[in-house]
Amino acid sequence: MGEIHLTGHPASPGLAIGPVAVLTTEVAGRAEKGDPAQEAAALKAAIEGAAAELADLIATVHGEAAEILEFQVAMLGDDALAEGAYEAVAGGTAADEAWRAALEAEISGYRAADEEYFRARAADLVDIRDRVLAGLNGANTISEISGDSIVTGDDISPSTFLAVDWTRGGAIALASGSPSSHVAMLARSRGAPMVVGLGPLPWNGQPPSLALVDGDAGTVIFDPQPETRRLFEHRMAAATAAQIAVDAGRLKPALTADGKRIAVMLNVAAPEELASLDPAICDGIGLVRTEFLFEGSRGLPGEDAQYQVYRRILEWAEERPVTIRTLDAGGDKPIPGVTVDGERNPFLGLRGIRLSLARPEVFRVQLRALCRAAVHGTLKVMLPMVAVPSELDRANAMLGAEFAALSAEGIACARPPLGIMVEVPSAALCADDFDAAFYSIGSNDLTQYTMAAARDIGAVADLNDAGHPAVLALIARTVEAGLKRGVEVSLCGDAAADTRLTNALLATGLTILSVSPIAVARLKAAIAGVTA
Amino acid sequence: MGEIHLTGHPASPGLAIGPVAVLTTEVAGRAEKGDPAQEAAALKAAIEGAAAELADLIATVHGEAAEILEFQVAMLGDDALAEGAYEAVAGGTAADEAWRAALEAEISGYRAADEEYFRARAADLVDIRDRVLAGLNGANTISEISGDSIVTGDDISPSTFLAVDWTRGGAIALASGSPSSHVAMLARSRGAPMVVGLGPLPWNGQPPSLALVDGDAGTVIFDPQPETRRLFEHRMAAATAAQIAVDAGRLKPALTADGKRIAVMLNVAAPEELASLDPAICDGIGLVRTEFLFEGSRGLPGEDAQYQVYRRILEWAEERPVTIRTLDAGGDKPIPGVTVDGERNPFLGLRGIRLSLARPEVFRVQLRALCRAAVHGTLKVMLPMVAVPSELDRANAMLGAEFAALSAEGIACARPPLGIMVEVPSAALCADDFDAAFYSIGSNDLTQYTMAAARDIGAVADLNDAGHPAVLALIARTVEAGLKRGVEVSLCGDAAADTRLTNALLATGLTILSVSPIAVARLKAAIAGVTA
Repeated sequence: MGEIHLTGHPASPGLAIGPVAVLTTEVAGRAEKGDPAQEAAALKAAIEGAAAELADLIATVHGEAAEILEFQVAMLGDDALAEGAYEAVAGGTAADEAWRAALEAEISGYRAADEEYFRARAADLVDIRDRVLAGLNGANTISEISGDSIVTGDDISPSTFLAVDWTRGGAIALASGSPSSHVAMLARSRGAPMVVGLGPLPWNGQPPSLALVDGDAGTVIFDPQPETRRLFEHRMAAATAAQIAVDAGRLKPALTADGKRIAVMLNVAAPEELASLDPAICDGIGLVRTEFLFEGSRGLPGEDAQYQVYRRILEWAEERPVTIRTLDAGGDKPIPGVTVDGERNPFLGLRGIRLSLARPEVFRVQLRALCRAAVHGTLKVMLPMVAVPSELDRANAMLGAEFAALSAEGIACARPPLGIMVEVPSAALCADDFDAAFYSIGSNDLTQYTMAAARDIGAVADLNDAGHPAVLALIARTVEAGLKRGVEVSLCGDAAADTRLTNALLATGLTILSVSPIAVARLKAAIAGVTA
Repeated sequence: MGEIHLTGHPASPGLAIGPVAVLTTEVAGRAEKGDPAQEAAALKAAIEGAAAELADLIATVHGEAAEILEFQVAMLGDDALAEGAYEAVAGGTAADEAWRAALEAEISGYRAADEEYFRARAADLVDIRDRVLAGLNGANTISEISGDSIVTGDDISPSTFLAVDWTRGGAIALASGSPSSHVAMLARSRGAPMVVGLGPLPWNGQPPSLALVDGDAGTVIFDPQPETRRLFEHRMAAATAAQIAVDAGRLKPALTADGKRIAVMLNVAAPEELASLDPAICDGIGLVRTEFLFEGSRGLPGEDAQYQVYRRILEWAEERPVTIRTLDAGGDKPIPGVTVDGERNPFLGLRGIRLSLARPEVFRVQLRALCRAAVHGTLKVMLPMVAVPSELDRANAMLGAEFAALSAEGIACARPPLGIMVEVPSAALCADDFDAAFYSIGSNDLTQYTMAAARDIGAVADLNDAGHPAVLALIARTVEAGLKRGVEVSLCGDAAADTRLTNALLATGLTILSVSPIAVARLKAAIAGVTA
């Protein structure tokens, strides 16, 4: 039997070898069927049961995984989704058939979407479909996969992914799927290699027994010849050795090849990410996103709830600097009750500091919580999406007022320095004009505005290039303004973790980069290779 | 009786005095009602009749007015709009009541929208509502207004506006309305002063007989005292005298106060705009938009149709340079069959040159037509939304191929020089890197990307400022690149017509400005006041 070489798109880097586990998506039929009223009740119970299961699962995960499951809970709660199914049930269709048909119509709509983003969400609908069907038919539809397998199939749902222990070395090889899917995001954060878009898997009946996955190149070899396997294992061993060397440098300060010290900070989207981390891996926290406090169905967080979270993060950092970003809602991050619906170009709309200034009652609570937390460590506060100096000035005045009010009330507090994200081109071009305590470059937004290419529109993905000379020129300009004004300049966007850009970024004069915890070791290794 | 002073928002500049004409929006009830089938047939006939009336009206206007009416035809053709009415008719409601109820539900939805853009479209729905009702009830619902009146009321529909001869000095004063509405656009282009958002008009029964409208300040005085009227008439006389002085300079070349020659070019959105114009008013055409060829329901235009239009414009210009922009679809300019639906941030999506390169079969036709037209004058071709040099290079290669193919076929043609719009920040920042025959700055898009603030989102309108130092810095950088490379740099966005910016624009080194015909005289007068 010959080797099967398939080429797809890389979705999560790394190499893996393992037995093939084929995903089964079959769901048993419903044993008995009641009258329409019984069927409607059964469907209702199954949908509610699925939501409850998801809520239980959310309690066991955190960060991105929790957000993804919250997304599914929100979809389940959308009446429009179930409406068609309830109508069919009223007309005499069995609950499981009705639900399946309704979801499949929806799924094919998503799959046919022009935009990658929507196509990538189809896997979440499959997940919801199967979870409710499992509830109706009393069968667990999620196949059991051991963590060292190469999981293959058409696509994989977030639930299925989350049910597997990926620390054991497995990988994912999919006929369809998307690098933008929720599962691909999870695979990258868990370090599981993943290749998508391989096309129809070319076997009938008995699947291959072994597979080699190259998540860097986006290739998969099924049933490799012994020589192919030997060469692949050599590559894996070399990669592992390199990884060990990289990991060994994880706790050491980052130095360039010619000995220049670069500060490597952390980006944190949820405080749980810090739980198992040694603070010695970083020089501080360069970005704490605070959107997680406002998401989900829990309503707006109070001052005390925010204070407790900020304080926990400052205490974790053990006096290292911690930069907390005020709420960056709007754009692609809607928050019910805060953001504006129906903007035709939300990335160019009421978002970030614009929204905070438009919702002072929400902003003041956050500023008070930050002033109170500031006594527990070295806190810096930064404002997202600042375009003009008056935005910083207004926020500074509000911060001053809240600090004064807390002091007058005799509540322990301190006034943290206020800096700005540089992610709007005008802020980079006129960085000198801002009375900012520091600058933090947000490369994702800066790139999409500078290139006029949204990061979530596949058709213009090539233009969304943080390494383009225009983006680098704006970064250099910001660094220059920081030197001139004697304040720190850091970069906390995805470009910091892209080691292909490390050389170019340090060449602009940047000395502080902030990345997610998983990227620290790799970034430090890349810095060690740069002659500044 | 005292004067009534009301303050609203300026929607179209200028001063006017005249008798008050109150808009009546009453529509007579339907005399008889048939059975549901008859009523449905009557409704269908009235909708089709309204569409036919609009089509007749479109044939009598051009440019923006035609586009606005095309928009109404498209709304009439939207089945979703009529669906509710047909359902009510099937249930026994009379056709006129059903239509009115369906439209009013829609209108209140538009009025309640978060976005100014949608609120501003409510007047179009009112227009459609009344036109169909008039068809059903056999009565003309549009009140007769003489062209020297101050038209007041809640809001005014585009049809009503277009039925009046505004050259006679009238103006508009509305209780609600929007500066972004179609009527406001028309009022600005026809030179009719307009004030919106005055709030409830404070009279019961007998309306005031006379009104003074200040479209610059956004104020209206009803029933002025003789002294108030006298002062206002003085202001009008002074403004008229100034306007006559300005108009006198219309055909003269533009010179700054210290004698520097500035080229003033025209922006043209439809060739009909040129019909009554003396080409001597301009130094050439700086921007011919070609979207009008692709809009409406006529399908994509063929090579010959395009060639004829381009040729007509070149012949009008009598050897003055004419810059034609290739199709700039996408963003806020969807074209069925060409643009992509459902982008979440269309301003950052597949638009301008990106779309032309993605639809080579459409682009090639336009390039061929342009090569053929180039023999009839001094043609320059420019590409919209260029972000990276490879886009220009690919377009240049396609232009070369089409020119070669035409030459080989023995068809008269020439290869026009190819320049770029500078409207993406990256193009301004790296202008040197483009092998462009000229640069033309598109200030509208350049501003919205540089400030990350869409021009059609009211909540961020203050940030959308073409006079911001960051935008001016990018303009200056482009001018510098043009000087260095020895090619022309012009500016053809709305900033060119904003005489508050003329000083700052000329200070960047710009020597070519392109504006719509109506703005030429005012711009030349402003230039005469600048010491460069």
